[in-house]
Amino acid sequence: MERHIGIIGAGVAGLHLGLYLRQHGIDATIITDRKPADIAKMRLQNTVAHHSITVEREKALGINHWPDPDLYYGCHHHSFETPQPLRFRGDFSKPGRAVDYRVYLPKLMEDFENRGGTIEYRNFTADDIPALASRFDLVVVSTGKGALGQMFQHDAAQSPFDHPLRLLSVGLYTGVRKSRPNGVTLSVSPGHGELIEIPTLTFGGHSTALLLENVPGGDLEELVRFRADDDPKGFLKLLLAKLEKHHPTIYDRIDTATFGLCQPQDLLQGSVVPTVRKTKVDLGDGKIAVAAGDVHCVVDPAMGQGANIASFSAVTLGEEIVKDAAYDDHFIERVDRRREERVLGASRWTNFMLMPPTAELFGLIIEMAGNPKLCNEFTMNFNYPERQWAHLASPARINAWIAESKVAAAA
Amino acid sequence: MERHIGIIGAGVAGLHLGLYLRQHGIDATIITDRKPADIAKMRLQNTVAHHSITVEREKALGINHWPDPDLYYGCHHHSFETPQPLRFRGDFSKPGRAVDYRVYLPKLMEDFENRGGTIEYRNFTADDIPALASRFDLVVVSTGKGALGQMFQHDAAQSPFDHPLRLLSVGLYTGVRKSRPNGVTLSVSPGHGELIEIPTLTFGGHSTALLLENVPGGDLEELVRFRADDDPKGFLKLLLAKLEKHHPTIYDRIDTATFGLCQPQDLLQGSVVPTVRKTKVDLGDGKIAVAAGDVHCVVDPAMGQGANIASFSAVTLGEEIVKDAAYDDHFIERVDRRREERVLGASRWTNFMLMPPTAELFGLIIEMAGNPKLCNEFTMNFNYPERQWAHLASPARINAWIAESKVAAAA
Repeated sequence: MERHIGIIGAGVAGLHLGLYLRQHGIDATIITDRKPADIAKMRLQNTVAHHSITVEREKALGINHWPDPDLYYGCHHHSFETPQPLRFRGDFSKPGRAVDYRVYLPKLMEDFENRGGTIEYRNFTADDIPALASRFDLVVVSTGKGALGQMFQHDAAQSPFDHPLRLLSVGLYTGVRKSRPNGVTLSVSPGHGELIEIPTLTFGGHSTALLLENVPGGDLEELVRFRADDDPKGFLKLLLAKLEKHHPTIYDRIDTATFGLCQPQDLLQGSVVPTVRKTKVDLGDGKIAVAAGDVHCVVDPAMGQGANIASFSAVTLGEEIVKDAAYDDHFIERVDRRREERVLGASRWTNFMLMPPTAELFGLIIEMAGNPKLCNEFTMNFNYPERQWAHLASPARINAWIAESKVAAAA
Repeated sequence: MERHIGIIGAGVAGLHLGLYLRQHGIDATIITDRKPADIAKMRLQNTVAHHSITVEREKALGINHWPDPDLYYGCHHHSFETPQPLRFRGDFSKPGRAVDYRVYLPKLMEDFENRGGTIEYRNFTADDIPALASRFDLVVVSTGKGALGQMFQHDAAQSPFDHPLRLLSVGLYTGVRKSRPNGVTLSVSPGHGELIEIPTLTFGGHSTALLLENVPGGDLEELVRFRADDDPKGFLKLLLAKLEKHHPTIYDRIDTATFGLCQPQDLLQGSVVPTVRKTKVDLGDGKIAVAAGDVHCVVDPAMGQGANIASFSAVTLGEEIVKDAAYDDHFIERVDRRREERVLGASRWTNFMLMPPTAELFGLIIEMAGNPKLCNEFTMNFNYPERQWAHLASPARINAWIAESKVAAAA
C-alpha cells in the first residue's frame, strides 16, 4: 500500500516520526513555519534531557550524532533542603544526554530531508485544513500551536489542573562545575520549588541548564517576575542569592566570576498548564488527524518526561502506521491503547510530584536516601514512567514499594 | 504480601483463575452453588471448543487431563449453501479440542481443591455482599447470575444490541460421522443461520455437538420453538428435515438409524443477548470487585469465543493479581488495558459475523474459498480475535486484507 503521511510540526515528535517513516520507506511531509537557521537563533524554548530509552531510539533511527561519552551522564544527585538535609544518588543502568534543541532539531531536519522526507516551510492556518484530507492518507499533528492543534478536544478527566503548578525560570549557563560523578542534580527547597541542573551541549560546547521550578507564591517566584532582559546583571545577582539560599549543592559548584547565561537569549521565563487532549480529529472524507507530542500531552518539565514521551509516542504511532491497513477509529483505538499507559503515567507522576508531598512520598524519599537499590530503581524509572506511577498511584502502593524495598535491601 | 482472593462462580473463568492463583501460592476461595455431582447431572448448558491457545494455557496450568490425540481436531470445514455452494477448509497450526463442560468443570474443581483452593458451596445473595470486603483483598466475579453480577454496569457503547442475533438449538448427538480430516464444520444457510458441528468428548466418549444458530424469523427458528422434551422423536424428525435442507454437508454424515441425543438432557434451546459490562464495582472499605468471563462479556457462541476469552481474561487477571501491589483503580485500568483488545475484538467480530453479510465480507469468503493461505489465517485467528477484528473492522480493512492475500498467494 502506498501511503503519504502529513506531519504538522517539526519538534521531536514530528521529526522522530518522520524519520521512522522514512526508515520504513513511507512518504512523509513535515509542515512547519520554522527554518533550521531560524531555530538556531531562537530564544531558548526548553531544556531537554534524553533518557537512555530515547537515546536507544535515536540509535535505532540512525540519528545519534552526539556519541561523545563526555556528553553523557549516569546518575541523579538528590538534594532535599529539609531541616536535616538529605543527599543521595540514584544511578542509571545506561546513561542519558542533553543537547540544546536549537542544535538538535536542525540536525534532524537535515537528516529527514537527506533521507527523502519533504519539509514545507509555511504558516499553517485554518484555511489549510480542508486540503489536508485530499493530500494525505493520515495527518499527524505534533504541535499544539495553531489552528489544527486547537481542534483536539481537551481531556478533562486527565487534566486536573487549569493553572501551572510551577513558574519556570530556565537558562543555559556558564561557570557551573559538573557534579561528580557527572549527573543531573535534583534539588528541592520545600515549599519553594525544585532546581533541575542538567549538563547540556549547546552551540559553544558544554553548558549547564538550570531549570528552576518555582512554587507560585514562594520565595523563588521572583525569578520568573524579574525582567531579566532589561537588567541582566541584576537578574544574575538575584539568581545567585536565591541559589545560595535554596539550592546550596548547586550554588557550591558555581564560579561566580564566570557565571552567566551562555547567550542573552538563553533564558526563558514562563510556565505550562499540564494538559491532556483527545487524540483524534475528523478531517472529513474518512480521513483523520492524530495527535502526538505536546498536542496530546503537555507535562511540566520537572520530571524530564515531555520529550521522552513525545519520542516514544511518535515512534509507537509510526510502528502502527507501518503495520496497519487503514487509518480509522480502529487504528486510533490501537494507537491509544499502546501509548496511554506510558503517556498518562508520565503526566500523573509529574503532577503528583509537584503537589505538596504526602507522608507516604516523604517516607519513600527517606527510604531512598538509605537504600541505593531503591533509589536506582526510582532513577531508572525515568525511562519508564508507567512503572514509576504504578508504585506511586496510591498511598498503599507507595507503602508496598517501601516495604518490598526494605526486604530486598536486607536480603 | 499475603493475599486472599474471593472468586464468585466456578465456570471456566473462575476455575482457570483459581488454579493460576494456586500455582502462584495465593490463597483463593471459590463460591458457587453447584457441586460437581450436580453439574454432571445438569441439562447441557453450552458446547465449547477450546482453541489451541486455550489448550496451551491448560497445559501451563497442569490441567490438560484430555491428551488423547483422537479428541483433537485440526481444521474448520466451511460450507456456504449459496446458489453456487462453496466448500473449503482452513487449517489450524495447532489443534483444538472440545470436552463437555459437565465433564470438564468438575475435574477442574477437584484439581483446585487438591491444590489447596477452597470451594464454598452455597447460594450467594445480596446479603452476602457486605462481608466480602472484610474477607477478601479482591473479589472476582465470574458469573453474571445473582446479586453481585447484576451490580456491574451495562456498557452501552460496547453493547449495540438489546436482542439476541440468533436463536440457539444446541445438543450432543450420536450417529454423526466425523468429518475428514477431523474438524469443526461451519455450515451457513444464508438468511436462515449457521450450524457449527464440533466433535466433543462427553460422558460416554465421543459425541457430536450440533450448535444451530438460527436467524429469528427464518426457516430454522422452529427448532428453538419446538417443545422437544414433550416430543423427542418429533424433534429429531424435524431436525433431520431441516439439516437435509439447510446444512447438507453435515446431514450427509448422519446415520439416521443411530442419530439421537446422547442423553435426554443433552439439548438446550435458548439465546443470548451480546453484552459487555463495566469491569469494576466498589465494595466499600477501599475494596473492589472485578469482572471476568460472562459477567464482563457475553458473546453469541457462533465464533467459539466465549470460553476462550473467559480463560484468557481470567489468567491475564491472575497475572496482574500476582504482580501488583494494590487492588485499586490503577489495577483495574491495567487489567482492562491488557484484556480489552482481545475481549472487545471477540465481541465485535462475533456481532459482525451475525449481521447480514456485507459485500466486502462476501468478497473475503469468495477469496478464502480459493486461497488456502488466507483461509488458514482466518482459521488460526480464532485464537486471536483481536487480529481477526483488525482485518474486519471496516470495508477498507477487509479489502486491504483481500488485496494483500492475493499478492501473497501469487508470490
